[in-house]
Amino acid sequence: MEEVNKEAALHSIVKESIINMIKSGEYQSNTKLPTEAEFCKTFGVSRTTIRTALQQLTIEGYVYRIQGKGTFVAENKVKQSLTSTVEQFSEQIMMQGKNPSIKVLQLKVIEATDFLAKQFKQNLGDPVNCLERMRYVNDAPLQYEISYLPWYKVPGLDSAACEKSLYKMLETKYNIKISKTVEHLELILADDTISKKLEIAPGSPCFLLETFAFSEDEAAIEYSKTIYRGDRAHFIIERNY
Amino acid sequence: MEEVNKEAALHSIVKESIINMIKSGEYQSNTKLPTEAEFCKTFGVSRTTIRTALQQLTIEGYVYRIQGKGTFVAENKVKQSLTSTVEQFSEQIMMQGKNPSIKVLQLKVIEATDFLAKQFKQNLGDPVNCLERMRYVNDAPLQYEISYLPWYKVPGLDSAACEKSLYKMLETKYNIKISKTVEHLELILADDTISKKLEIAPGSPCFLLETFAFSEDEAAIEYSKTIYRGDRAHFIIERNY
Repeated sequence: MEEVNKEAALHSIVKESIINMIKSGEYQSNTKLPTEAEFCKTFGVSRTTIRTALQQLTIEGYVYRIQGKGTFVAENKVKQSLTSTVEQFSEQIMMQGKNPSIKVLQLKVIEATDFLAKQFKQNLGDPVNCLERMRYVNDAPLQYEISYLPWYKVPGLDSAACEKSLYKMLETKYNIKISKTVEHLELILADDTISKKLEIAPGSPCFLLETFAFSEDEAAIEYSKTIYRGDRAHFIIERNY
Repeated sequence: MEEVNKEAALHSIVKESIINMIKSGEYQSNTKLPTEAEFCKTFGVSRTTIRTALQQLTIEGYVYRIQGKGTFVAENKVKQSLTSTVEQFSEQIMMQGKNPSIKVLQLKVIEATDFLAKQFKQNLGDPVNCLERMRYVNDAPLQYEISYLPWYKVPGLDSAACEKSLYKMLETKYNIKISKTVEHLELILADDTISKKLEIAPGSPCFLLETFAFSEDEAAIEYSKTIYRGDRAHFIIERNY
């Protein structure tokens, strides 16, 4: 038991040291870290300890590994404001010197389920747009989202138009202005579908953001589920009191 | 490979089904779920599939397991607003019919590190209060936090006074009104210390919330790191556009 705790404490110390060296700039983005053997020597610990520390650093997004090449320092996480209402996703990403893109995976019309019918104050089976999109930053997947929008408010949604900001498009094409959103943020583990879309191992921890969006007349316009890669997402919340 | 994918897909289906039965109220909070053997029969899948689904549901906070007794439906997660600036932690918890409490683990004065000195516009080695607290909901740990407050702004901080709202106490005792906070939310894995404090397995995914708090004259008053149990925390963000 004593041994187990010692081991656990050691990999935490190694991990913290590596994080500090990355944060201080001693290890720069996309440069190769020392090998496991070198780290063993530096810290005077076992290879298992180094491996555990590197594994956790990978899941937390500080480093990435290339088979047969070694471990590299990851670029900073992608920051997104959860309070700013001025800049859209794309603008926020570009301000960080990164390149955002959106890809529509699928757009179809489905029958409202119990949940969706209640949400949109429609009847069971009424038509609802179901829009599945991916968002990439520097060509690597960051988020996978499924949005539902009621057909009676947003008829004939056009797939190409959804490759940019959905809310801007609702305003220009449908004269619908989103004036309020309520979002719920939780932690989930990637299932098989999510792991494939986000290119992460099944079971990797992710953020799940559920959004309920309303127009000025308080009608429910959108319900969406967005899954963010846990190793890449970084949310910022600013509050004034 | 085909088999692996089939297996992965199966446990996702089982997991979704159980979540739906919990959400619909078919399985009530704190009641015992069917046994693994019973679930195998119901879903017509292997025990491994059921186990994987139940493991993931445990980490995501839908169920909890008692050694030798079985699997039970967890109570709803604890909701906290990331935008409301009116209700404090305690009030938000009580509104959900739950019982909040705060415990001070340690209060000491340390020497400002590079980071803290820069943050508080102080010199390296200047005195800084370091306050370590736990927050519980219904006597189970929800969050572990370490706050740093510069001594020159908050001299002689009193441990007993920190068992309630820190910001309210700053106002009444020090005449400091927190008027702005900037928070950073990321995902981390519990190290040995965190896993003990939060009573979760080492490596469990958690939320890390870093807070920078400023007074009306824009002086930095607090820097804190709060770690939330990933299986219990649920954040709500409301935005008006």
